[in-house]
Amino acid sequence: MSRVPVLEIFGPTIQGEGAAIGMKTMFVRTAGCDYSCSWCDSAFTWDGSAKDQIRMLTPQEIVLELDSLAANNYSMVTISGGNPALISEPMEKLIDLLRDRQVNIAVETQGTRWQNWFNKVNILTISPKPPSSGMDTDWGKLEHILAHSKDPLISLKVVVFNDEDFLYAKQVHQKYPKIPFYVQVGNEDVTEEGDISGRLLKGLEWLFQKVIDDPEMNEVRVLPQLHALIWHNKRGK
Amino acid sequence: MSRVPVLEIFGPTIQGEGAAIGMKTMFVRTAGCDYSCSWCDSAFTWDGSAKDQIRMLTPQEIVLELDSLAANNYSMVTISGGNPALISEPMEKLIDLLRDRQVNIAVETQGTRWQNWFNKVNILTISPKPPSSGMDTDWGKLEHILAHSKDPLISLKVVVFNDEDFLYAKQVHQKYPKIPFYVQVGNEDVTEEGDISGRLLKGLEWLFQKVIDDPEMNEVRVLPQLHALIWHNKRGK
Ligand code: SF4
Ligand code: SF4
Repeated sequence: MSRVPVLEIFGPTIQGEGAAIGMKTMFVRTAGCDYSCSWCDSAFTWDGSAKDQIRMLTPQEIVLELDSLAANNYSMVTISGGNPALISEPMEKLIDLLRDRQVNIAVETQGTRWQNWFNKVNILTISPKPPSSGMDTDWGKLEHILAHSKDPLISLKVVVFNDEDFLYAKQVHQKYPKIPFYVQVGNEDVTEEGDISGRLLKGLEWLFQKVIDDPEMNEVRVLPQLHALIWHNKRGK
Repeated sequence: MSRVPVLEIFGPTIQGEGAAIGMKTMFVRTAGCDYSCSWCDSAFTWDGSAKDQIRMLTPQEIVLELDSLAANNYSMVTISGGNPALISEPMEKLIDLLRDRQVNIAVETQGTRWQNWFNKVNILTISPKPPSSGMDTDWGKLEHILAHSKDPLISLKVVVFNDEDFLYAKQVHQKYPKIPFYVQVGNEDVTEEGDISGRLLKGLEWLFQKVIDDPEMNEVRVLPQLHALIWHNKRGK
């Protein structure tokens, strides 16, 4: 039976960012990414550093593990990565199992791959990566994904580290003005230990001001990563 | 012509809390409240301390002032108080004027008064006050308002300071499980000067944990006040 490469299953916790900000959720983090963003906060999913922790699990095993962690104490599962969109059939099976149990499903992916199961999830966040990531956007792929995804479950989110990233975010928003659009302040050092909330809040204030000052960004949402404000760079929170 | 008692018109800024968290908005703050919550962060709207700053403005004058502050640089106006639901006809007129201009309108009120214009706004937050406020909830009034308000524009929000408030929040959520429900961490000292973000984030972590631990709170959202994290207790931000 086909299996999902899983790096982390944890929760319940609170989703700290994006369209589902503030919602109680379990997390399933898959291994593997087709990108290698310079500031990736989940680089262990693809850089080999956590290779030994990858488990090949069947969809049923994942559901069992979610329940053993938190039976009756969750109604939402967030599937994150890496890039969960690299996985087709076993991921669709997992999503079907969760749907059968009336669990809401959120997925985040950078928009390089389409999967038919995208339209089975409740909250789909497409998060194209700005110039500071060092990655190039494949606009054709992004277009394909957005054209095939159902409203209003979909949203776009761009992490912003600097002025160039902000321009990129504007460009994405202007291409797809009808799709709910989030800008999120980036975490410049995902390995720094201790309390990083002061630095993150300075970044949030900067991004607030960028949006406040820009008449072309009247409809976007600006959000922080709440989990990073509270739990800093800790994993599994 | 009838007028609105206005204490503040400011913006654009970013909505820091509730269903519209992260959205760029102008604010119109009305004077007067039928409550006197112990921890009110807008007590100047009703305690007489800013009496000299109240202006009686026509709806047209308010729109002119919004435009003189930020023409073309906003697409949303948040009407707050005090309790804006104390005002009937001139408020409806203001809302009609803003709607004519394709401006989205958000309103926050504690749920003691119904107004027919509630169903003309885009985002209506009903915020009943927990025991720590010192106020008593009129459950009949709340019921009337929720029964007459249109989904999905409406949400419930309860500010939580302590365990007793959390129980109250649960009670409200269980009465109205289908209405989107927000719990928000309270600001225990709305006059403290300087950086209060550390204290607020500790409160947020506490509230995260309360929701994480409670299987009856799987569907609620937990949020901070972003503006207070960034701008602390400053007015007009
Ligand atoms: S797409 Fe996401 S998981 Fe992949 S490298 Fe970039 S930030 Fe990391
Ligand atoms: S209802 Fe709102 S404005 Fe009125 S006293 Fe309470 S917190 Fe203050």
